[in-house]
Amino acid sequence: MATELPTAVDSALAGMRDRARAASGALVALGAEGRSRALLAMREALHARAEAILAANREDLARAEAEGIDPALSKRLALDPAKLATLADNLGELARLPDPLGVSQGRRIAKGLRLETVRVPLGVIALIYESRPGVTIEAAGLTVKSGNGLILRGGHEALTSNAALVAALRQGLEAAGAPADAVQLVEDPDRRWVGGLLHLEGLDLLIPRGGNGLIRRVVQEATVPVIETGVGNCHLYVDRAADLDMALAILRDGKVRTPAVCNALETCLVHEAVADAFLPMVAAQFRQDGVTIHGDEAVRRRIPEALPATERDWAEEYLGLEIAMGVVPDLEAALAHIARYGTHHSEAIVTNDYRAGTRFQEAVDAAAVYWNASTRFTDGFMYGLGAEVGISTQKLHARGPMGLEALTTVKHLVRGEGQTRDF
Amino acid sequence: MATELPTAVDSALAGMRDRARAASGALVALGAEGRSRALLAMREALHARAEAILAANREDLARAEAEGIDPALSKRLALDPAKLATLADNLGELARLPDPLGVSQGRRIAKGLRLETVRVPLGVIALIYESRPGVTIEAAGLTVKSGNGLILRGGHEALTSNAALVAALRQGLEAAGAPADAVQLVEDPDRRWVGGLLHLEGLDLLIPRGGNGLIRRVVQEATVPVIETGVGNCHLYVDRAADLDMALAILRDGKVRTPAVCNALETCLVHEAVADAFLPMVAAQFRQDGVTIHGDEAVRRRIPEALPATERDWAEEYLGLEIAMGVVPDLEAALAHIARYGTHHSEAIVTNDYRAGTRFQEAVDAAAVYWNASTRFTDGFMYGLGAEVGISTQKLHARGPMGLEALTTVKHLVRGEGQTRDF
Repeated sequence: MATELPTAVDSALAGMRDRARAASGALVALGAEGRSRALLAMREALHARAEAILAANREDLARAEAEGIDPALSKRLALDPAKLATLADNLGELARLPDPLGVSQGRRIAKGLRLETVRVPLGVIALIYESRPGVTIEAAGLTVKSGNGLILRGGHEALTSNAALVAALRQGLEAAGAPADAVQLVEDPDRRWVGGLLHLEGLDLLIPRGGNGLIRRVVQEATVPVIETGVGNCHLYVDRAADLDMALAILRDGKVRTPAVCNALETCLVHEAVADAFLPMVAAQFRQDGVTIHGDEAVRRRIPEALPATERDWAEEYLGLEIAMGVVPDLEAALAHIARYGTHHSEAIVTNDYRAGTRFQEAVDAAAVYWNASTRFTDGFMYGLGAEVGISTQKLHARGPMGLEALTTVKHLVRGEGQTRDF
Repeated sequence: MATELPTAVDSALAGMRDRARAASGALVALGAEGRSRALLAMREALHARAEAILAANREDLARAEAEGIDPALSKRLALDPAKLATLADNLGELARLPDPLGVSQGRRIAKGLRLETVRVPLGVIALIYESRPGVTIEAAGLTVKSGNGLILRGGHEALTSNAALVAALRQGLEAAGAPADAVQLVEDPDRRWVGGLLHLEGLDLLIPRGGNGLIRRVVQEATVPVIETGVGNCHLYVDRAADLDMALAILRDGKVRTPAVCNALETCLVHEAVADAFLPMVAAQFRQDGVTIHGDEAVRRRIPEALPATERDWAEEYLGLEIAMGVVPDLEAALAHIARYGTHHSEAIVTNDYRAGTRFQEAVDAAAVYWNASTRFTDGFMYGLGAEVGISTQKLHARGPMGLEALTTVKHLVRGEGQTRDF
């Protein structure tokens, strides 16, 4: 890495990084009002260029179809006038949120020095993501609001859409007197650009958003700071003291409505005392919903059509209409299972027993732990953060839904009258 | 890495990690009072076993001397009764600090759900460090206080001292009914253990403390979360509106008293308007102090004995009685120099000009930026954190001196009455 000669890709990325850093400085200098004006101008530019953006998106969709792409991916790729208008209008909502920069805390420290700890942008942030062009708009909005420069590397199947979106966003920035280079797009589909970003010296944060393969590669290879997002092998534990109708509603909310997201449920564990009552309810509901059950022996005795669950099923993030189900003798067995197979994203218990609920919330090591509520609430908007750049499944810096503050750091400013430490 | 077969080292480290994680759970269960009692018992055990510890340290020192080790390293390695007693007593101070765990913030989120965000330990922390055995005590104290399990890998030259210290600390933990495995030491000097820690799956944080070579290797190679610490190429900029006596005192504090630390000064930039007045003052003082000056042409015209500064001098962290000095035409030139060569640790300006001071504090991208004060204040104790596990020079998670909070993360607990998201 460090010892190899820089390639043309590395040099180009270094140039983008330097322009993004200069843009970050200019965004800070604009102040909160200037950055809000930029967000409103970005919104207007998206509305004004909606036709060109939707035409570009149709081009991507036609190419994807010609290449015989997975329909689920096509769906994530597709924009329509209403969706684009909502994404644009969300920039206006973002403009109204409190400024995450400049917030400071002061105190006196040694020898009467005044220490002021102030929130500042991270600097230059890169995002590697897959097909959803909406992420382009959300990420640009969050980074402009927080005074950061952004380098985007989207999926090749969304390239034409992303180019049209970024052209509009940059036009908006310029119209508001803000630096267009605050939002830059890598337009070359060559994979070497991804490798270059993983090792781009001076990059302050790299966020991978997408499938497990992408996130694993970034975490394993990157030498720049990374926040790991989004892999969720989420569990629901139905306790012996559960309200079973509530449990079924939460199970269905987590599995059926939007199965392709990271806060969807992938495994359901049932206390053996309620297995006879609950499993037939699940079987009847999931037959209607078309959900395939992979069960352990105790489940298969009660749900004949369930397939046998293998070791792989317990670890699998299906992201589709499949679920792993098991019967456990008690809460501690459920906790042990979750500790072994969970991905520290979102886990839930349904119970009306105080000790079971508190023990579960205490013992589970995850970003979010639910008691009588759906795991689908792990989301920046649901948490009231106003926006979300991803859901962190790591423990450093940010955990769970990441809003604007996750895109900032602090600086310690110390003022004195010539104080020296003298030792 | 992931595809290779686990070695005996990897298996042993996995065992240490699992025991450390169980110990973390036990420390949390002990509560704040139980953890404080453990710290006091660790203090008592260090006092009680002081003779054995000092004998072990003499053994390390004798071996180091026989191997012809650098005297500066010998000095860092040496313990004496007073130093050991102070290190032990600091555990008592730590016991009195507020508990970093359990601190929570609550609010209502979507659909009336109650979200409680609560501070929890990171889990398992590993420290790779060099010769100072005092770090063993400090790190153990901080991790026990914050409910984390700790795996220590010290320098081979301090192995006997560290083994004696860790034996005492573990005895203290046990005496207080706390798990001894909260503090574990890798006692095999084989370098493969370092490699194993860099890739130990499930490790929550790895902190390297030591020279630039160690820190670079860890940051480049590690696939576990790392906080980068300590490299400090710190600058002092003496502005045209500086009080020159103050500037000289701050320069001397930063360069002469304790030159081998990361917050010491390595470069001094002087505004050309005060170069004729200030440089002779520096020359006279540094002749007495035995500091070698590496200067640019403008400095060498005024300080004949200064050696010519090369590109390498501007980037060098001397950690000794040497300094790079240059004359700049204005504040902006100083800022550009710091942006190019600084390591984002601590930077200082001396000036009585309001605009120069505010511009410097705004523009410099570093963990700590000083105005009329010494960079030597970048320190957890000086900042009133009560303790310090290192000084972060990165922007994610923690920046600047890291106290107890840097060893924690948050967990989001959500309670409801069966709420589902429904889309």
